Amino acid sequence: MNNIGVDLGGTKINFVLLKNSKVFESFEVATPKSRNKLIEVLEENIRRLARNSKINSIGLGVPGPLNMKGDLILAPPNLKYLSKYPLGKVIQKKLKIKTVMENDANCFVLGEALIGAGRGAESVLGVTLGTGVGGGIVMNGQVYRGKFGSAGEIGHMILNFNGPKCGCSNYGCFEVYGSEKFIISRTGMKPKALGLKAFKGDKKALKTFADYGRFVGMGLAGLANILDPEIIIIGGGISRNYSFFIKSAEKEMRKDIISPNSKKYVKIKKAKLGKFAGAIGAALLINTKQHA
Amino acid sequence: MNNIGVDLGGTKINFVLLKNSKVFESFEVATPKSRNKLIEVLEENIRRLARNSKINSIGLGVPGPLNMKGDLILAPPNLKYLSKYPLGKVIQKKLKIKTVMENDANCFVLGEALIGAGRGAESVLGVTLGTGVGGGIVMNGQVYRGKFGSAGEIGHMILNFNGPKCGCSNYGCFEVYGSEKFIISRTGMKPKALGLKAFKGDKKALKTFADYGRFVGMGLAGLANILDPEIIIIGGGISRNYSFFIKSAEKEMRKDIISPNSKKYVKIKKAKLGKFAGAIGAALLINTKQHA
Repeated sequence: MNNIGVDLGGTKINFVLLKNSKVFESFEVATPKSRNKLIEVLEENIRRLARNSKINSIGLGVPGPLNMKGDLILAPPNLKYLSKYPLGKVIQKKLKIKTVMENDANCFVLGEALIGAGRGAESVLGVTLGTGVGGGIVMNGQVYRGKFGSAGEIGHMILNFNGPKCGCSNYGCFEVYGSEKFIISRTGMKPKALGLKAFKGDKKALKTFADYGRFVGMGLAGLANILDPEIIIIGGGISRNYSFFIKSAEKEMRKDIISPNSKKYVKIKKAKLGKFAGAIGAALLINTKQHA
Repeated sequence: MNNIGVDLGGTKINFVLLKNSKVFESFEVATPKSRNKLIEVLEENIRRLARNSKINSIGLGVPGPLNMKGDLILAPPNLKYLSKYPLGKVIQKKLKIKTVMENDANCFVLGEALIGAGRGAESVLGVTLGTGVGGGIVMNGQVYRGKFGSAGEIGHMILNFNGPKCGCSNYGCFEVYGSEKFIISRTGMKPKALGLKAFKGDKKALKTFADYGRFVGMGLAGLANILDPEIIIIGGGISRNYSFFIKSAEKEMRKDIISPNSKKYVKIKKAKLGKFAGAIGAALLINTKQHA
């Protein structure tokens, strides 16, 4: 089986070719500024990946929620020209290859669940910590989309109803405390810069990551109480600094989980597929019942 | 099909006999103070329900989490004499009828999902508002138990990390704001007494329920963001006062849900099976894959 996966981001597009679920080729290109140019770039690079193989499917990981049928992108925050656009159908028609679409966070989790840090687990909660906090749920190898296609929006559960807004209409969302917003508001620095300081042993930087971890742990505990997953996988830009916050996150999480079994047995791991995880998951969509 | 369901509470035990998923007989008895006496009472009342019918199964709804295999009650808060006890197996052996066990909150949701307010829905989140806040998840007619048997512990997600403890080790759980604790701390009255005042038009009582509803709505929004259920069913003792808090709860919930579809389409309903919902759900357990 040869499957192409595409992870469509606001600034770059990742492409992978999987052969029997193994990465054979991968690369990234900049995201074009117009829809016509985007379609050109997708077509050109997919043809390039397909030059020597018969391709069984194309999977597109796209930003933001899809409509309930899963064929229209609803309101992509950084790619407004794709709003309500049937990108999958357009690509399928141009290339004559079965093409499916899924929310990019769900693609990330599916990739990690099937061939990454969650391989073999029955249920996986994937959490992305970055500019925002995103999430996805995979159960028995299937993306859990919920009734209206939007399950896994974990960033907007409230952790502190007296807290500041994250940009949505709520106050004190998980995203306020679990994204880079927390680190920037504490230190004025981006997580990457703060990570360099922490790496050199800077005490204030280490303390900030430890505090950050506590809040991440509170959020994860709530999620574990509700979903009781086998494993929680941490990805997103801030996971580069995993070692600086994971101890305090895990300690807080285990303290806050109610069920004695989940408290003891739930696993927490760093994502392992790297920056192509989303594209890999997109390529694997065709293995799920929903997209088969 | 004739199925007996038993809902084992700290102070009373509800029994039902279902014939083809319809309630044929139901009654309640006081919960005995010792394990031997409990087993006697269960045996006697089940035999009484079975006097004229061949019984296909017995379902027991029991308090607190079960072990992962689902055959031992782990740590029942109000029935300590059942700790680590294989009640289902004991009853099955005595009565020679297939007997299955499930957490009582899950039984409540299963009953409502299959033949109550959630009939026909694909996914149901059940929420019980009472002395505590409990929950359960039913998807495609199956209880979603999670990997370690404890999914649906919604009462202990944090809504305000600066808030007071609910009794668990967390601060500011949903339970602090969504259970009778909130109403008692605001007014010194139990929800039932406050409900009588609200019924007579007492402004302070109505305001307290409206404020309570706002917090309930915050919790429900977080859950809808994560789980994206088709319908949320509200039960538990405080649901007697449903009309006094549901408007503010629903308004807050829809404001706080992120996904445009879930925001618009998720339904919220009052439980309709009444005090025998848990026993009815227990009787229906045998219709789930897990217990078949």
